[in-house]
Amino acid sequence: MSARVFVVAAGATSFGPMPDVDGHELARQAVCAALESSGIDPAEIGIACAGHAYQGPCFGQKALMKIGLTGMPIVNVENACASGATAVQTVVNAIRAGQAEVGLALGAEKLTKPGGGFLPIVADDLESSMGRVMPAAFAMIARLHMERYGTTPEQMAGVAVKNRRNALRNPRCHLQKAVSVEEVLDAPMIADPLTRYSCCPVSDGAAAILIASEGAARRLCDAPVEIAASVLNSGLRTPYGIVDDRSEMSIRAANRAYEAAGVGPEDVDVCEMHDPFTIAELVHYEDLGFCAPGEAGRMIEEGRTEIGGDVAVSPSGGLLAKGHPLGATGVAQIAELFWQLRGEAGEYQVPGARVGLAHTVGGGVTKLESGACAVHILTA
Amino acid sequence: MSARVFVVAAGATSFGPMPDVDGHELARQAVCAALESSGIDPAEIGIACAGHAYQGPCFGQKALMKIGLTGMPIVNVENACASGATAVQTVVNAIRAGQAEVGLALGAEKLTKPGGGFLPIVADDLESSMGRVMPAAFAMIARLHMERYGTTPEQMAGVAVKNRRNALRNPRCHLQKAVSVEEVLDAPMIADPLTRYSCCPVSDGAAAILIASEGAARRLCDAPVEIAASVLNSGLRTPYGIVDDRSEMSIRAANRAYEAAGVGPEDVDVCEMHDPFTIAELVHYEDLGFCAPGEAGRMIEEGRTEIGGDVAVSPSGGLLAKGHPLGATGVAQIAELFWQLRGEAGEYQVPGARVGLAHTVGGGVTKLESGACAVHILTA
Repeated sequence: MSARVFVVAAGATSFGPMPDVDGHELARQAVCAALESSGIDPAEIGIACAGHAYQGPCFGQKALMKIGLTGMPIVNVENACASGATAVQTVVNAIRAGQAEVGLALGAEKLTKPGGGFLPIVADDLESSMGRVMPAAFAMIARLHMERYGTTPEQMAGVAVKNRRNALRNPRCHLQKAVSVEEVLDAPMIADPLTRYSCCPVSDGAAAILIASEGAARRLCDAPVEIAASVLNSGLRTPYGIVDDRSEMSIRAANRAYEAAGVGPEDVDVCEMHDPFTIAELVHYEDLGFCAPGEAGRMIEEGRTEIGGDVAVSPSGGLLAKGHPLGATGVAQIAELFWQLRGEAGEYQVPGARVGLAHTVGGGVTKLESGACAVHILTA
Repeated sequence: MSARVFVVAAGATSFGPMPDVDGHELARQAVCAALESSGIDPAEIGIACAGHAYQGPCFGQKALMKIGLTGMPIVNVENACASGATAVQTVVNAIRAGQAEVGLALGAEKLTKPGGGFLPIVADDLESSMGRVMPAAFAMIARLHMERYGTTPEQMAGVAVKNRRNALRNPRCHLQKAVSVEEVLDAPMIADPLTRYSCCPVSDGAAAILIASEGAARRLCDAPVEIAASVLNSGLRTPYGIVDDRSEMSIRAANRAYEAAGVGPEDVDVCEMHDPFTIAELVHYEDLGFCAPGEAGRMIEEGRTEIGGDVAVSPSGGLLAKGHPLGATGVAQIAELFWQLRGEAGEYQVPGARVGLAHTVGGGVTKLESGACAVHILTA
């Protein structure tokens, strides 16, 4: 039985293009928001972990130094899009190991740059260099899901419609404009059947949470939120062939997290999900057990993942509308759950939310590569 | 009282320029060496952590996938030159947190590239861009030590002479040629008073260790080596001004490690030290308490840090002669101590070694930046 750990504070910047703000400043804003909103003394922080993918050597040290946070162990972690979630688990482990009573998990990414441009593609990545970049890989997954289960482009578009609608209520979102199913289908094609509105935007942003041991949580916070499960694993998104429509890493991580937390998918009230493309959200409904394989198209169609439905999926707007600054995403998901489970999510509050699940995936999209999947379950 | 953890296996590549070998292959060789020398089943590995600075996204997943190691949590950590030592601590915490019984700490770096070239300098690093690169920073520290304590260029050169001599006995070393004090002084000047032979070379390499809980260690290894202290902190190398001749981070980390392990500097038989420049080793004699401030020049002169002296410092050859593939260094230091404390260090064995200390520093050399320092104490 692992020692209990709790989230006691959260802060985040808005996500979106911020060409004049550097990564250190984004991190500063998120950390200060967490500290100021909770009133917790920065001197309480006994370990810090910074999740990021492209911010350079000793990013955490440099960013935190600028707000006077130095001296404690600082670890920079990278797991592609799951870097932030990995930072959360690294802090959880440090607290459970007795290294500190209170730890800071920071996630930040500055992706936009003058003149724009793509994410760097790793030089030795044969598949990407031949065109199998992320949208192409997810388009193949979408094609397979359509063929196998009769999932329709309209159902996939429904994910964008829902997450854009949720985003209208969350001032931290990158894309705050509603779209209709027709607009999603008519948008410029990126990788058939995925159009521009089926893909997450390129965003900057940062998020920070404070995690505490049970004793420190009781002392520092009137309504701490327990991290009932923190699971990280590695593997492939698509283990059974060139493409597949289920994600072995996500299924395995979710099952272990449910077991650790003593809950099942039917107990989850709110889920912040890894939805870089519309099809990803549908596949992950099935991976996380929210519906049976092949049922995801109908689940979105019937509104069962709306706020007020069976399980509210990405009420924050998700990666598709809130944005996806890689390292920030996993920490921001936990911050969103912290607010939801404390009833502090304002206009996009999920009524009566008691159990939240954050699901993050990084890397591992090609057949040759292994990536990371993290599932955290939080309980009020 | 933290749960006890032990090193149960170690493996490493030779260090040196290996232009035809990529980082994944270096990692593979080190991990396989650790597994093969110990006979431990790879299926025992419940968590893996890869320390590196420049190997790109999800390096650990990609490298380990190529030898079939996937499924377990894999965390990539970065702390500049202390990335490997940070990987060790991350695995220690995961085991103490109960996440796994056995973990793999991997460190790897491929630094040489076709055509050579420098390490990338971070674009927003004002001091480096104006010439305050590593050799310049350490030259200023050397000047201050000379001025304050009368340390001589001959004494500094003595560090290179010792470490090059040790390296002659270690087949894994990059530089296997003895140098005399005169040769060090007469070598091309890099940053006065540091000549080419006062600086570590640019090397490729990898190292891996397996860390286990007490129960697993007893089951898997006939002579496990305890990690009696694992300390990581952040801060500045030079906190008191533009330069200073002692390192606040190292002093603080060492003091905490001695306290955790219940030993003092006088108990250390063998030390693998962070010696990227000759002056660094002298400064760290003082930081780690091997001699009083100002006494380091005399300590090297009197041979007290030779194999067979008061404390054998860097019998492996150290960064100066063995080489310094950034992420690999911290893990390789612990591997060296594992071999020393088991009496397996061959030609460079420190007779009767019972207590070993590994000291690694990363970043934090300028006034504006915070870095990392790790001190591990191992006991037979």
